[in-house]
Amino acid sequence: MNIAILGTGMVGRMIGVKLQELGHTVTLGTRNVANTLANENSDAYGNPPFKEWHKDHKELALATFKEAASDADLLFNCTGGMISLSVLEQVGEDVLHGKVLIDVANPLDFSGGMPPSLNPVNTDSLGEQLQQRFPKLKVVKTLNTMNAQLMVNPGLLEGMHHVFVCGNDAAAKDQAKEILNAFGWNPDQILDLGDITNARGTEMLLPIWLRLWGALGMAEFNFCIQRNG
Amino acid sequence: MNIAILGTGMVGRMIGVKLQELGHTVTLGTRNVANTLANENSDAYGNPPFKEWHKDHKELALATFKEAASDADLLFNCTGGMISLSVLEQVGEDVLHGKVLIDVANPLDFSGGMPPSLNPVNTDSLGEQLQQRFPKLKVVKTLNTMNAQLMVNPGLLEGMHHVFVCGNDAAAKDQAKEILNAFGWNPDQILDLGDITNARGTEMLLPIWLRLWGALGMAEFNFCIQRNG
Repeated sequence: MNIAILGTGMVGRMIGVKLQELGHTVTLGTRNVANTLANENSDAYGNPPFKEWHKDHKELALATFKEAASDADLLFNCTGGMISLSVLEQVGEDVLHGKVLIDVANPLDFSGGMPPSLNPVNTDSLGEQLQQRFPKLKVVKTLNTMNAQLMVNPGLLEGMHHVFVCGNDAAAKDQAKEILNAFGWNPDQILDLGDITNARGTEMLLPIWLRLWGALGMAEFNFCIQRNG
Repeated sequence: MNIAILGTGMVGRMIGVKLQELGHTVTLGTRNVANTLANENSDAYGNPPFKEWHKDHKELALATFKEAASDADLLFNCTGGMISLSVLEQVGEDVLHGKVLIDVANPLDFSGGMPPSLNPVNTDSLGEQLQQRFPKLKVVKTLNTMNAQLMVNPGLLEGMHHVFVCGNDAAAKDQAKEILNAFGWNPDQILDLGDITNARGTEMLLPIWLRLWGALGMAEFNFCIQRNG
């Protein structure tokens, strides 16, 4: 498949590389290609600038959000949650029409300092906002509740752990689950919660995720829903 | 110890019975003793009216919130989260001064219909509100992320699962952890997240908990934070 990753940060890079390894043709989308290539700064987590990273990953193309999405059979939203809506506006309703978007983003708002809050939250979610603004897009929320390494390599954790899926379109969710399987998620690790309103629940896992990151002193952990049988 | 349980619902009853079995003297607190004893209706979950339940549990006393708390060495908040502040106002600052309150409540707001939302949420929490309103009370938030059966009998689940603890007073948290141990929680099942602001993260687990309850078709599950080593 031709797959567009919206966003060139750590999450987009890791998912892009994994999809390319799986045989897909991957284009990373960005707001301004020249600016992305000119950037010489590492990000807040110490990840190298795109230019430097791209030297070792020339097989992944770089294009504008709109160009990347136009040629794609499947989209991943790996942008920062606070700008995701504006990114999809740049792609445009015509391009998004009928496509599946796997939404990995969380609406973390750092404007009030650390720890970030969620915006929207509680009675709304980013997943719902994307679906509502673009009703012909098929939004599937998943993978937003763990760090990027685990998203594409769940076997890094020895014990059982889960990935949540939600969305309004059953066929789109099936396609997302196939991708999850290819990433290494077994069917019994995938919990389908129902429609896109469940994005509230998964996005609201972020506050405790961030606190656990601090309390445990590492990011390589995930939620497991423990039950008998 | 003399322990007061604020609230006479299912959670308060189960914790009260467990504490009594463990050798403590337990008083359940309610707004109006006569009204609680006169009520003849089951609750929304089919639990019998207090009067009927109490026939088999005469060893647990019933008193007003203030009376129950006045004689207690330790308090449990098992009231509905939307009324917890007003309940503590009835108990009063003088009675609460210096006491430890184990806060099991969640601020679920059903006024907008189902599913309930959280109020407060995101940048505040019920645990923090109780602590802020009564600074001399030592609030420990715990046990609010699972159903009542698991709170007092974590061995019902075969695999690993966790209970979160947070609060500003280290000695109060130690006391809460001793109670958790007595309930059956092993030390490695208890995750201390830090200060009371972490109540935001644990209360914000409720939306996905409620959705999982629906998706799994049963309430006997709990969060496990899966990690290696």
